[in-house]
Amino acid sequence: MAKELIFGHQNPDTDAIVAAISYSYLQNKLGYDTEAVALGEPNEETAYVLDHFNTKAPRVIQTAKTEVDAVMLVDHNEPQQSVSDIADVKVTHVVDHHRIQNFNTADPLYYRAEPLGCTSTILLKIYNENNVAVPEVIAGLMLSAIISDTLLLKSPTTTDEDRDAVKTLAELSHTDYQTYGLEMLKAGTNLGNKSATE
Amino acid sequence: MAKELIFGHQNPDTDAIVAAISYSYLQNKLGYDTEAVALGEPNEETAYVLDHFNTKAPRVIQTAKTEVDAVMLVDHNEPQQSVSDIADVKVTHVVDHHRIQNFNTADPLYYRAEPLGCTSTILLKIYNENNVAVPEVIAGLMLSAIISDTLLLKSPTTTDEDRDAVKTLAELSHTDYQTYGLEMLKAGTNLGNKSATE
Ligand SMILES: [Mn+2]
Ligand SMILES: [Mn+2]
Ligand SMILES: [Mn+2]
Ligand SMILES: [Mn+2]
Repeated sequence: MAKELIFGHQNPDTDAIVAAISYSYLQNKLGYDTEAVALGEPNEETAYVLDHFNTKAPRVIQTAKTEVDAVMLVDHNEPQQSVSDIADVKVTHVVDHHRIQNFNTADPLYYRAEPLGCTSTILLKIYNENNVAVPEVIAGLMLSAIISDTLLLKSPTTTDEDRDAVKTLAELSHTDYQTYGLEMLKAGTNLGNKSATE
Repeated sequence: MAKELIFGHQNPDTDAIVAAISYSYLQNKLGYDTEAVALGEPNEETAYVLDHFNTKAPRVIQTAKTEVDAVMLVDHNEPQQSVSDIADVKVTHVVDHHRIQNFNTADPLYYRAEPLGCTSTILLKIYNENNVAVPEVIAGLMLSAIISDTLLLKSPTTTDEDRDAVKTLAELSHTDYQTYGLEMLKAGTNLGNKSATE
């Protein structure tokens, strides 16, 4: 099976980076040959998350077609938020929690969207559906993404499925999610930097 | 929860009719208030299927907004294949196995597509994921849809998941799928009528 790249949107947030990592791990377990990459450097919050869970930031790419013929998208679907040459590659999989806009394909594909607070909540469901265990580190990363997207389960987009996922992932990663979540949000632009500049 | 209509594409084939019936049954089990309807009368093959499994054809609608604010689509996503006033209603769910074309939403939604031979194969997975038992009659209808879309598992779009689904649904509906499948395809336009007019 030919290699595929997996990536989130431009100006990546924690979910965009982490969903690529966790979906790549899952897809490789299921027999695909994938690499998680990113369309930009981690922001300060994501850098804190990756450091906390001893994970390297994904390699940043400018174009995809130079490396592969097919890609998988996470945490976005709109071409204008995607890699510059998205029109030149085939999209075989999408996992996302946003509206669908200007996303057109020539062929059938795997597309999984749900109106939940975070892509990582959907990914946890897909892990479970495929009976793939979530490793401790990846559970910590996914937990961080849900905390980031839902502002520690306080955003209006938060659903019961996000709350359940946070509990499951906190256990799997042995994380006190309230304490860690506040530190993480402070480390990033959500609280720390904004209060400094505002 | 406000009522929603579920329907397949115009000029419905067996999958379009049957997927609406089986998705409506599942969604109602999960707490939604839905009704399976159709964008046209059953063709001869589908009429044979519905008669065989003692199931009434879904009511045919011309417009949706006259009845509901929101709808769920099965076996299609392209607006030009959908109800005439699709632009006036909100699409909350899609289950499909076709390419995505000109499908745009204002809000996040549930969208489940997989590159399999039949929508009903995907629906069987969703039943299983939600631990909802497939009633005998609905299993027979879903089996018929897969036989129809894959021409008794012989079309190039047939996947291992379609083959597995046929075996499971044949057991659940107590159907000898080889014998039934040939009769069904003969009853419809796939073999019966074509050979008469060609
Ligand atoms: Mn994002
Ligand atoms: Mn997200
Ligand atoms: Mn169809
Ligand atoms: Mn179909």
